[in-house]
Parts: sequence; structure tokens; C-alpha cells
Amino acid sequence: MKLYIGNKNYSSWSMRSGVLLGAFGIPHDEVMLRLDFTPGAAWRQELAGVSPAGKLPVLVDDDGFAVWDSLAITEFIADAYPDHAIWPRDRQARARARSLCAEMHAGFTQLRTVCPMNIEAFLPEVGQTLWADDEALRADVTRLDAAWREALAASGGPFLFGEFGAVDAFFAPVAIRLSRFSLPVSDAAAAYRDALLAHPAVEDWVAGAMREQDFLPAAEPYRTAR
Amino acid sequence: MKLYIGNKNYSSWSMRSGVLLGAFGIPHDEVMLRLDFTPGAAWRQELAGVSPAGKLPVLVDDDGFAVWDSLAITEFIADAYPDHAIWPRDRQARARARSLCAEMHAGFTQLRTVCPMNIEAFLPEVGQTLWADDEALRADVTRLDAAWREALAASGGPFLFGEFGAVDAFFAPVAIRLSRFSLPVSDAAAAYRDALLAHPAVEDWVAGAMREQDFLPAAEPYRTAR
Repeated sequence: MKLYIGNKNYSSWSMRSGVLLGAFGIPHDEVMLRLDFTPGAAWRQELAGVSPAGKLPVLVDDDGFAVWDSLAITEFIADAYPDHAIWPRDRQARARARSLCAEMHAGFTQLRTVCPMNIEAFLPEVGQTLWADDEALRADVTRLDAAWREALAASGGPFLFGEFGAVDAFFAPVAIRLSRFSLPVSDAAAAYRDALLAHPAVEDWVAGAMREQDFLPAAEPYRTAR
Repeated sequence: MKLYIGNKNYSSWSMRSGVLLGAFGIPHDEVMLRLDFTPGAAWRQELAGVSPAGKLPVLVDDDGFAVWDSLAITEFIADAYPDHAIWPRDRQARARARSLCAEMHAGFTQLRTVCPMNIEAFLPEVGQTLWADDEALRADVTRLDAAWREALAASGGPFLFGEFGAVDAFFAPVAIRLSRFSLPVSDAAAAYRDALLAHPAVEDWVAGAMREQDFLPAAEPYRTAR
């Protein structure tokens, strides 16, 4: 299989799928398309030939069959590898994990907008200003913190439903945002954030991001250069 | 089971789950929370007691267990009713259906923003103006049309993967938008739009919406009254 991803430093949607495959040791080749947003950039043509939706990540199986979107990729992997607990085995826990993934998928808009993922950039002062000024950001983080605490209390941790699973891969980019923008969370949420950051599959992805040393102005609201 | 929904006239996310349950004849009670967006509205308190995410729809099973978000509800129903082809039986078709649902879930932002669902309102002139002026809207509809055509050509229709399934329930609100704003699509996409609008579960939902005769200013960018 091939996983098409954007820059590891910036592409939070790619990170979800990359971390999922990495955490479960699912063999695949990575194809990185540099997310150069200038009009007519070559990667758009290459991607259009792989997936008509034109979004990353895309998983292409050995038959050339393309699955796009991090959530559909997760379900495809869960279908293909039933021996792995991609989702929790318990029916209710599985429903809860999918609720959280879907909520992340379509929600937390303010957090995603004003705190874009940028793995190599540590911006605590920006985070402090945003936190003071942005009520919608505080509401997103408050909801996130409550959702995490509820799941962790029910499972006992260290991940949301005990062992590491798809839902944790979905929240890995959020752990990066909380860390890089130094946003305040509860002790329980901080412990989970740190467990995510210390997971080998997350560390691998972060190491890859740090090696990129790329700068894409369109993904950089807060820096003018590296 | 109970399905908590917003106004049938406005709540496209609720419609997905309502149409899914209706189409497969899955017994449930509907609890409609009027989406009054004034601060401190009572429905927010009621909803918070049911689902901590505070979003509609929410499915509550007979044990009081809550599943939120239309996509997680879909997977929960598919888990609970394996005899129903909620997703296509074929592995690749299933992956494709989930890709399309996930793309709808997180994408088509411009279509969703400038053409909000409003079942009782026929606004072809607004649609014509938007179509002329809004490149991002045209891009969304062009992508939608291509995705529909590809699936219909592969399956032979009348629904995206042959028989009616979850992915069609996800696109039912889009059929409403295309119809009410009279947005231009290909013949194949128009036939699918019309098949959706003629499905009994969609007709049921629409009839419920027409009976509401409610007006929520926050959901009405184009009308000042009914």
C-alpha cells in the first residue's frame, strides 16, 4: 500500500493516517507531496491522478484502489485488519470512539483555524494571546478537555480507551497544537497529551517533520521565516 | 431508541440520520429540539443532559447510551443491524461509500455555507446569483457532480451504489440544496438528485419539515419572514 501525505510538519489530516499505520505496524510506502499552494502546483496534478477528491491523505492499495479521507482510511484499515483493535472491541466504547473521531473530523473549527499544526514551531506567546482574546478557542479546548477526561476516567488510560487506537491517532495533531501553542488544559488532559507525544508512532512522525525544514507561507500565519 | 434532532426544515445533519433510520425501517422515537439560537435557549440545557458534545443529531439507545454525530450514528447502526446493507457489501464499494461520506462530513464547505438547507424555501434567484458570483461554490458542485457520476456509472444506479444506503442518506440534504437553490448539475447528477427526493424516507422528512412552519432568523440569510 501507498499512503499519500502532505508535509509532515503541516498536514494534520495526513498525520492521523500516518500515525495509525505506524502504530499498528501496517506496511506501507509513504509518498509525500509538498503542499505548495501556488496556482498550478505540480502536486495537484499528481494527486488528481490518484484521487478525484484532490485531498490528502489518500491510501492506495496494491490494486491501485484509492481510499481518501482520514476517517474512511481508518475504517478501511479496520476492515482489512480485523485482528488489530483499530477501534475498541467493546460495542459502546467503539461507538464512543467513533463519536469522538467524527466530532474531531467536522468540529473544533476555531482550534484548527487559529492554531494550525506546525510541528517545528513553538509559539507559546501566540498561544497566550489567542487564549486571552478568543472565546471560541477557549470553548473548543474546554470541550476537548471534557471529552478527553470523560473517556480517560472510564477507561483508566493511558489512551482514551486504554490501548492506543484510531481515536488516539485522530487526536495526535491536537496534542501537537496544545503543546506548540502551550494552551492550558487539565492535569488529566495534559497527561494524555504527553502520552500521545511520547508514543513511538507520533515520535516517528514528528522526527520526519523536523527533518523537512520547509517553509510554506500559506500555512504560516505567525512566522515570516523558519 | 430515541433520535434527537433539530428542526427538520433546517437541520441537515439531523436529516442524514433521520432518513437513514427511516429508509431501513429502524424503530425509534424522534425528539425535536427547536434550534432557537438566542443565548440561554432551553434546548441547549436539555441537549447537554443527553450528549456532552452539545451537537445534533444524537442517538440514545434503550440503555441511555448516547452516540453523537451523524457519521458515528451511521456506524453504530451498521454495527447493530448487520442484516441491513447500511454500507455496500462489497469491500471496495464500502470503502468508496465511506470516503464520500467522510468527504461530505468535512468538506463542501462553501456549498454548505452559502446554500444552507431550508426545505420550505425555494430560492432559485438566489442560487442563480450565487452561481454567477461564487467560484468556490461552483468548484464544490463540480466536484460533487463528478463524484456522483463516477459512483453511478460504476453501480448503474439508481442510488450511488445501487440500492439505497447510508451514503445516499448523507447526500439527501445536498439534493435539497441543489433543488431549492436550483443549482445546475449534469443529467446523471440530476437523475440521482431526483431519485433521492422521491425516496419515501426523504419525502417523509420533507413532509415533516413543511409542517413545522417555523422561522429561525439565524438560519435564514436570504429571507426576512416566511
